[in-house]
Parts: sequence; structure tokens; C-alpha cells
Amino acid sequence: MSTVSVVYFSGSGHTAKMAEAVAKGAAASGAKVNLLRIRGEDITQGRYENDAALAQLDASDAIIFGSPTYMGGPAAQFKAFADATGERWYMRKWADKLAAGFTVSGGPSGDKLSTLQYFFTFSMQHAMLWVGLNELPAEEGINRLSSYSGVMGQARQEEPEVAPNGADKLTGESLGRRVAQAAQRWNQPLSTREKQAWSGVRSIKDEVLAAS
Amino acid sequence: MSTVSVVYFSGSGHTAKMAEAVAKGAAASGAKVNLLRIRGEDITQGRYENDAALAQLDASDAIIFGSPTYMGGPAAQFKAFADATGERWYMRKWADKLAAGFTVSGGPSGDKLSTLQYFFTFSMQHAMLWVGLNELPAEEGINRLSSYSGVMGQARQEEPEVAPNGADKLTGESLGRRVAQAAQRWNQPLSTREKQAWSGVRSIKDEVLAAS
Amino acid sequence: MSTVSVVYFSGSGHTAKMAEAVAKGAAASGAKVNLLRIRGEDITQGRYENDAALAQLDASDAIIFGSPTYMGGPAAQFKAFADATGERWYMRKWADKLAAGFTVSGGPSGDKLSTLQYFFTFSMQHAMLWVGLNELPAEEGINRLSSYSGVMGQARQEEPEVAPNGADKLTGESLGRRVAQAAQRWNQPLSTREKQAWSGVRSIKDEVLAAS
Amino acid sequence: MSTVSVVYFSGSGHTAKMAEAVAKGAAASGAKVNLLRIRGEDITQGRYENDAALAQLDASDAIIFGSPTYMGGPAAQFKAFADATGERWYMRKWADKLAAGFTVSGGPSGDKLSTLQYFFTFSMQHAMLWVGLNELPAEEGINRLSSYSGVMGQARQEEPEVAPNGADKLTGESLGRRVAQAAQRWNQPLSTREKQAWSGVRSIKDEVLAAS
Repeated sequence: MSTVSVVYFSGSGHTAKMAEAVAKGAAASGAKVNLLRIRGEDITQGRYENDAALAQLDASDAIIFGSPTYMGGPAAQFKAFADATGERWYMRKWADKLAAGFTVSGGPSGDKLSTLQYFFTFSMQHAMLWVGLNELPAEEGINRLSSYSGVMGQARQEEPEVAPNGADKLTGESLGRRVAQAAQRWNQPLSTREKQAWSGVRSIKDEVLAAS
Repeated sequence: MSTVSVVYFSGSGHTAKMAEAVAKGAAASGAKVNLLRIRGEDITQGRYENDAALAQLDASDAIIFGSPTYMGGPAAQFKAFADATGERWYMRKWADKLAAGFTVSGGPSGDKLSTLQYFFTFSMQHAMLWVGLNELPAEEGINRLSSYSGVMGQARQEEPEVAPNGADKLTGESLGRRVAQAAQRWNQPLSTREKQAWSGVRSIKDEVLAAS
Repeated sequence: MSTVSVVYFSGSGHTAKMAEAVAKGAAASGAKVNLLRIRGEDITQGRYENDAALAQLDASDAIIFGSPTYMGGPAAQFKAFADATGERWYMRKWADKLAAGFTVSGGPSGDKLSTLQYFFTFSMQHAMLWVGLNELPAEEGINRLSSYSGVMGQARQEEPEVAPNGADKLTGESLGRRVAQAAQRWNQPLSTREKQAWSGVRSIKDEVLAAS
Repeated sequence: MSTVSVVYFSGSGHTAKMAEAVAKGAAASGAKVNLLRIRGEDITQGRYENDAALAQLDASDAIIFGSPTYMGGPAAQFKAFADATGERWYMRKWADKLAAGFTVSGGPSGDKLSTLQYFFTFSMQHAMLWVGLNELPAEEGINRLSSYSGVMGQARQEEPEVAPNGADKLTGESLGRRVAQAAQRWNQPLSTREKQAWSGVRSIKDEVLAAS
């Protein structure tokens, strides 16, 4: 079983709803899911500190990043979390994990791509593999905002119960499912029967890692 | 006389050195320069608050943004500052000001472009006009790292007195000069003699603004 | 009077409609407008050649770039045009001109920001100044797609007469007006009376350029 | 055995040298490698046509994109190739393949990141998974230019035999190896003996795909 962590910041609760949708999709595909909210209390003078949260990410096969788009990029609180991963970067601790992302803001486009691009750049610094969305846009339906690199959701002043809307949350679920399935495939979760057939054989994963 | 503000975050002091170089260039071109450092003390739970600093930016003709590149983007502390400008965004307070940017990190490339791209996106949310660098790269000389959208400086573990190096700081000065001259041109700084010739005439700036 | 050129590629005619809207806005603000379509006939083996078109751009105060978003970026035909400006880049011929951009594709978001980002990067290589849109998004109205760096228009399989729709075209007009007014301000179009007052005085523009 | 294709454009031969290094790395990891050069002859009026080349990519497990950075982005010839994949995009033909990229230009930074970002955006439109570089930068050594999203190489006016230099080409080899190993892991290349042990068992890959 793969472990998928969803680590996100949410200011007004809209991104939290999207995070739940993404987590729901991942769980429905059989992954163990951690839903980790970045909290302001963990940020002092712009620096994030929460060893337990980071340790959960260390133990994950895939990490899905989420943030509202504020002023054209991820929220400062998300960035504080990202900046706190420098030691893990240096130790290559997250290398070869899967990464993905989602963001929410008021307009249909609204520079949300800029936030997804940042998530991508951040994950590349960590040598993760990026998994985007695989949904051709459907007007008013799944991926109605037509995003590819990750999930976009829309929320203006409505209550978080209402926005992002159902279609946006289905889009989030789709990404969660996709990441969970990719983590399963990438990490070769062998059944007991398959494992017996393989007794005495190093796992392909180990071989690949040893060779790399 | 135009007012150019340089607003930046610096963690280890290297970006501060670049900020000083940019300020020096702007001052040498006759601008009044504000050098504003974003400080961790002004950030609580990821939120920046410093009314005096923001008021100085409100009163500026041009704002030059600076930050180290941390984990593929601007430092969280810079982002906290950016996120604190939402009301100004809504009020269009910074519209038509000039914007520019600089960043410092350890490698020659090192995703520094990503930080400059964020500064650009941020300034576009504010409807500012972006002014890049105008220096063809010279090996080991000005713009040795070959950047166009803004200034890139390099600093590893060296002391801030040593890195960014002299060439990088000259590049910073070049941007400062360019922005100051552009602010002068954009805001039509008329000499006393020219002002007398114009007595009784609304400034072209007012006319343009009235028409817009 | 300022000269604003709109240089664009259009495959199916939708981007051409947006180009006309941008041109209309610029003309309404008193600019002389060149509407230049990049044509496949001018591209041989991926290389664009049209000296007359490039000479018109050389003589412009502002250049507005336009292209559909194809496969996540500007059309190859636009890129062929961009690649043909290398000599101008080296000679710094377009330095200090104003730049802006617009793009059209099928979805609300659809990686259109990626195309605008390319236009920006391209203009920075030329040391141009970038002018974005100054319109807070209005649901179903001007800037309904919520773009800041430039104009986004939407067109699926509809006829070019229908899409981009009226709101999108008004957004294009807004950018055209803004660029024309910025060009006027940037280039100080003095009235005859003002020119007489200045007789014997070098234009501020020349002074600024001489000093830079 | 996985099939890795390297599809690239090269104007002056420098990017071709990098393509060969990437291919060498992939082959050394046991992949079958296709080295496909995008040729101007296949581009008419900005449109690329080469069914055989596209069919080879259809049959690949991973595709590595390469282009010089011209005027801040991929060469028009590369973009023409990208634009020719629209039908494959609609049919989701390249979904779940691995993607990676490399670029070469004259300066250390020089907007090369912009080209890698385009490759990423393009691959996301196709729902591919992006694999970056996993090499912490070493001064004068592997990844000396400090890139993460893909490989950067540097070449000015030198002969292609000389630039990109040895360190840059080793960086290219590193990406080739990484992509080949990732393709092997992602596609579970079972040995004959393993296949016998599995007789009667659907491959995990099929299950994952069936579930997705």
C-alpha cells in the first residue's frame, strides 16, 4: 500500500475543501492518505517548524502540494513550509518521490498556473517526479478550467461549502486517484502470492535504486 | 526627482549587498532612493504587517523587488510582504508604477529565473510596468550570468563582503540606473526652466491619466 | 503621435479577431497602428523572413505580440518570427520600446499564461518594457478570465465572428488603449505650443538616452 | 527493455552533441534508444510533418525533449514539432509516458529555464510524468550550471566538439540514465524467469491501467 500525503495551506477554507477532495480520490484508490494542514502557528518570523509533519512527508511515497493563489503565487505560509525543507533537499531525502499539486483562487485563470509552476519547480529541486492531471477539459464538468499541470479550483466570496464547486472537487478527486495509482505502479506493490514467486529475488525497486 | 524604492529580504546578507548596489545605481541617476528591508519581526504566523514601509512604497514612482532564491522561488518572508499588498491591489494603488527585480542564490542558474518570474507576475497583478535589465552578457563582467528579466547574483558560502562579486554588483547598479532613468522619463521630470515655460499647463502626466 | 504595432499569428481566425480588437483600442487612443499578421508563406524550414514587417516593428514605439496557445505555448509560426529577431537583439534595436501581449485558446485557463510568459521573456531579451492589463476581473465582463500579464481570450470550435466573445474583445481593446496611452506618456508627445517653448532644448528623451 | 526516445532540434550542432550524451546515458542503463533529430525539411509554412518520427515516439516509454534556447524559448522548429502532436493530445496517446528535457545556449543562465518550463508544460498537456535531473550542482563538474527541472548546457561560438563541455555532457548522460532507469521501474521490465513465475497473472501495469 502506498502512502500519499496532501500538504496544504488554506486561509479561508476553500483550499481545505479541495485538499479533502484530493485526499478522497487518493484514498479511494487504496492509498494510505495523510492530510496535513500548514498552520500559521508553526511559522515564526516567516520560518516554518514542524518536525512531525515533515517526518510524515519523509515517510510518504507521494506528496501533493496545495495552496490558494495569493498575489500571483503560493501563499507565504506554503512558501515558509517549502523553505523549511532545505536540509531534506541537501540530503536528497525526497528524491524519486512522486509530486503533484492543486490551487484555488477567485478567477477562472488568475495566475493559478504560476502557483502550479512553483510547485513543479520546488519538486524538481527535490528530484521528485511530477504527475499532472489527465483529464481533457469538459465545459462545466471535470477540469472545466482547463488545467494540465495540476488542479485548479475556483472560489470567490462564497462559503467553502459551496466553492470550489462539485466539478472542481471531482477534478481534485481525479488527481488524487491518479497520484495514488501512479505511486502504486512506481512502487510495485506486489501481492503476497507474487512475493512468494519472487522469493530470493531482490525487488526491482532495489535493483533500480542500487543501479542509480 | 523620482522616488525609487528597493524592497527586499535577505537571510544571510548577500541579497542585502545586491540591494545596496541597486540602490547605488538608482541614486547615481538622481533618484531619491528608499532601501527597505523586509524583517522577520514584521511577520506573524506568515503575515507581514508594516504600514510605514507600505506607505513608503505607495509614495514611490518605482519599486524594485529583491529576494534570495530559496527552494526555487522567493523567500517566504518576501512572499509574506507580497501577500500583504492585497488591499492595494484591489484599490489599484500601485497601478502604473514601474517595477523591477533581483535575486541571489548559490549556482549560476539555480532557478533564479523562477524568482524573477514571480516578481513579474506579482507586479502585473498590481498593473505596474516591468523594466528588465539592458545589458548583453559579458563573460566574467556585467551580466555574466546572462539574465534579462532582472538581475541575478551568485553567492555560495562566502561572506557577503565577497559575494555577490563585483561584476554582479555592477549588474545591480546597472538595473538601478535603468529604473531611475525610466522613472524620470515615465514621470517627466521637468527642469525649472521647462516648468516656467509650461506655467498654466496641466502636466502631460495628468492629461494622460485623466484620459485613461 | 505614437506608433503601436500589433504582430500576431492566427491559425483559424480567432486570434485575428482579438488582434483587431487590440488595434481598435490603440487607434482610439490616438496611436498610429500597424496590424501585422505573421503568415506561413514567410516561413521556410521553420525560419521566418519578412524584412518589411520587421522594419515596421523597428519604427514602432510599442509592439503588442499575439498568438493562439498551441500545445501549451505560442504557435510555432509566432516562434519563427521571434527567432528571426536575433540580429535586432544583438544590436539592441528594440531596447526601451514598450511590449504587451494577448493569446487565445479553447479553455478558460488552458496554459494561456505560459504563452504570455513567453512573450514577456522574449521582450525582456530585447530590453523592452512590459505593459500588462489593468482591469480587475468582472464575471462575464471585461477580463472575465482574470488575466493580468496580458489579455486572454477564449475560442473553441465556434466561428471567429462569435468567439472570442464581446467581453474578451473589450478586454483586448482595453490593452490596446493602455499601451497606446503608455507609449504616449513614455515618448512625451508634446503639443506644438509646448515644442515652441522647448525650442533649442534637446528632448528629455534624447537626454535620458544619452545618459544611459 | 524500455524504449527511450530523444527528440531534438539543433541549429549549429551543439544541442546535437548534448542529445548524443543524453542518449548515451540512457543506452548505458539498458534502454533501447531512438535519437530523432527534428529537421527543417519536415517543416512547411511552420507546420511539421513526419509520421514515421511521431510513430516512433508513440512506441516509446519515455520521450526526452531537446532544443537550443533561442530568444528565450525553444527553437521554432521544436515548437513546430510540438504543435504537430495535437491529435495525439486529443487521443491521450502519450498519457503516462515519462518526459524529460535539455537545452543549450550561450550564457550560464540565459532563460534556459524558460525552455525547460515549456517542455514541462507541453508534457503536462500530454499527461506525461516529468522526470528532472537528480544531481546537486558541483562547481565546474556535473550540473555546474545548477539546473533541476532538466539539463542545461552552455555553448557560445565554439565548435560543437568543444561545447557543451565535458561536464555538461556528463550532466546529459546523468539525465539519460535517470530516465532510462525510471522507465524500467515505471514499466516493470520483468525477466523471462520472472515472467514464468507470473504466468497467468495480469501484469501490475495492466491492472493499474484498468483501474485508472
